[in-house]
Amino acid sequence: MSDHKRMRLSRKMQGLAPSAVREILKVAERAEVTSFAGGLPAPELFPTSEIAAAFAHVLANAGGRALQYGATEGSVPLRAWIAERLARRGVTSAVDRLLITSGSQQGIDLVARVLLDPGDVVLTENPTYLAALQAFAAHEALVIGVPSDNDGMKVDELEAFCVRHTPRLIYLCPDFQNPTGITLSAERRVKLVDIARRYQIPVLEDDPYGELRYRGTAPNAIAALDDDWVLRLGTFSKTLAPGLRLGWIHGPEDIIRRLAIAKQACDLHTATLAQAAAAHLLETFDFDGHVSKLCAEYGRRRDAMVKALVNTMPPGTRWTEPEGGLFLWVELPPGVRDQDVFDAAIARGVAVVPGNGFFVGAPRHGFLRLNFSNQKPEAITSGITRLAESIRGLMELGRPKTPTDRPALSRS
Amino acid sequence: MSDHKRMRLSRKMQGLAPSAVREILKVAERAEVTSFAGGLPAPELFPTSEIAAAFAHVLANAGGRALQYGATEGSVPLRAWIAERLARRGVTSAVDRLLITSGSQQGIDLVARVLLDPGDVVLTENPTYLAALQAFAAHEALVIGVPSDNDGMKVDELEAFCVRHTPRLIYLCPDFQNPTGITLSAERRVKLVDIARRYQIPVLEDDPYGELRYRGTAPNAIAALDDDWVLRLGTFSKTLAPGLRLGWIHGPEDIIRRLAIAKQACDLHTATLAQAAAAHLLETFDFDGHVSKLCAEYGRRRDAMVKALVNTMPPGTRWTEPEGGLFLWVELPPGVRDQDVFDAAIARGVAVVPGNGFFVGAPRHGFLRLNFSNQKPEAITSGITRLAESIRGLMELGRPKTPTDRPALSRS
Repeated sequence: MSDHKRMRLSRKMQGLAPSAVREILKVAERAEVTSFAGGLPAPELFPTSEIAAAFAHVLANAGGRALQYGATEGSVPLRAWIAERLARRGVTSAVDRLLITSGSQQGIDLVARVLLDPGDVVLTENPTYLAALQAFAAHEALVIGVPSDNDGMKVDELEAFCVRHTPRLIYLCPDFQNPTGITLSAERRVKLVDIARRYQIPVLEDDPYGELRYRGTAPNAIAALDDDWVLRLGTFSKTLAPGLRLGWIHGPEDIIRRLAIAKQACDLHTATLAQAAAAHLLETFDFDGHVSKLCAEYGRRRDAMVKALVNTMPPGTRWTEPEGGLFLWVELPPGVRDQDVFDAAIARGVAVVPGNGFFVGAPRHGFLRLNFSNQKPEAITSGITRLAESIRGLMELGRPKTPTDRPALSRS
Repeated sequence: MSDHKRMRLSRKMQGLAPSAVREILKVAERAEVTSFAGGLPAPELFPTSEIAAAFAHVLANAGGRALQYGATEGSVPLRAWIAERLARRGVTSAVDRLLITSGSQQGIDLVARVLLDPGDVVLTENPTYLAALQAFAAHEALVIGVPSDNDGMKVDELEAFCVRHTPRLIYLCPDFQNPTGITLSAERRVKLVDIARRYQIPVLEDDPYGELRYRGTAPNAIAALDDDWVLRLGTFSKTLAPGLRLGWIHGPEDIIRRLAIAKQACDLHTATLAQAAAAHLLETFDFDGHVSKLCAEYGRRRDAMVKALVNTMPPGTRWTEPEGGLFLWVELPPGVRDQDVFDAAIARGVAVVPGNGFFVGAPRHGFLRLNFSNQKPEAITSGITRLAESIRGLMELGRPKTPTDRPALSRS
């Protein structure tokens, strides 16, 4: 209030900082940098000419309707297509159990708006998706991390968290999680749903990456295991293109109705034109063939990254080997700090995301998130080699500038 | 909590009902109905082929970028165009003073999110825009209506409201207001800004219709009169097409930055493709010529409606004569209720919106909102004639079924 010309901010905005990753991405965008930092799909794989044909078709044949206001719930043909697609992951959906959203980020925000009051507890994996933390913070929720390992959230420990914290929501990204690339095991999905039912806690299953599986078999979606307590988010950002901003929420019909009321107050509805074009595209185009092409190429990039890590990383470095998605997660050798690696790698023309920002509660400084979808295999090999040199350089300096904190994995 | 399978809703959702107008619009959409109910622009006036050419151009020449994730703040060329356009209304804007939103409804939601805490008071015109009431309700704000007359909000009474209620925001639609069609006078704009400064209360100037002026001269925008306390919303929904979902917020740079942080948590950013296509369209197309064409046609429709009202309405009926926009506001003869008129008119194949839903606080039942943009002049003449018959019919029935409430205009 020192500046009399300054509007006073709401309490919830006072706790909301810009994403640190966004600042990093600005550096990473420089043309000379090999970036593993963003979470971008590869633009050369967008079905651009098919999207162009779909927009042209819709505008030529139904432009008046596609450019007019539309229903908040979204396009019926698009929801019908999504409902059918969800059946492949074992989910029983329907037009009335789906709401079209402006990307799946809006799904997180709407669910928070409809289910959370200030001070309510949300349980998440730890580390977790950064922009989910921002969405929960904007609703003044208190996020508590449940420890995770190579099979995802440690569901055996979840019940104790439910007893201790009486959470109002469990949020997780069970397939190829951002930032770790880890997939929640089938057994843990069953246990998770059992706990959610017994304690009557809604589960928000965020699935931006599930279509991008390069090896192994997909377990059932969490939403396939329960019809009452699970809301599932999906998006076309990774299969068609993020610039369309088209996502969806699947859930119980009464909650979908409430989410639509909330969405109406937020932005009336998602762009009618983009929905009509996507619906037409999906009716006329070989979506499975397109996803197979994406998986083949992204799978090559993932393999190139894992191979380069095996060939170049110093001893003491570990990483996840995801079966799909866009990311893998590197654990640095003891004593090496993520921010120091970021600085050293940028000096060698390589951008990574320091892992500390993905942690709930106290940050941990021994991890990096690497994206492999947005670089070709040769660039990945060369970039990882330079990243390994950066880490070796820091190890040779002896003790890093500041001590690292590496607490035991189990924490609340 | 009687149903154990039901997710518990947040407190703010418990007060949020679906818009009554939406239910009315479903009836109005029936093909045999002449609808004055919606707020739809005329689809036959959308620049559909120009929009199609712009999407085709962008996808053919910069598809990779237009389909990728983008900056939360929005397209720089699009913001530069908007900044230049705002100068015509006397507003000093700039790229860094603008945030692109998913329609101007999102602008209302974001401003509420950034400036309002639960229980904060918002002052509005009375009646006011229904979906603004919903957006404020979703943030648990308390809305209080300031009386209005034919020159807009009674700014002379505003200061007493500021003293009594210590509001955190003043919301108004000063040009061709929804639902009344009334424009705030130039003198009142100056007084409003003086009060906002002295009491340090942000003003949210919602301007969806300002480009659609059919007669008279535009006063300066409220944002032209102050650089610190006014946020101004705009949209392409009425000049290009609502199905694109493109709007903007203009305001002080530090607040725009906060609004961008809030938007990032809501939906990351507005569709990159739609922004790129709109920016290209505006660079290459005769926007002024297009707006002139809209104004000529909507002006004819407005004139047809006013003329039909003059020719057919029973004594005791009054209406506003707006200089622009999409709506006019009818005051029914004493004793005639809006809902009864709705029912009688629907039976004659005409849809209107009962005015009661637009009031803050206790509803008043002697008003109708009529939209003239979405019907051709002949249909307007015929529809208004049938509406007048409906009102006469109710008057001939003697006292209506239930007594009306017509309190004095001055109320809090």
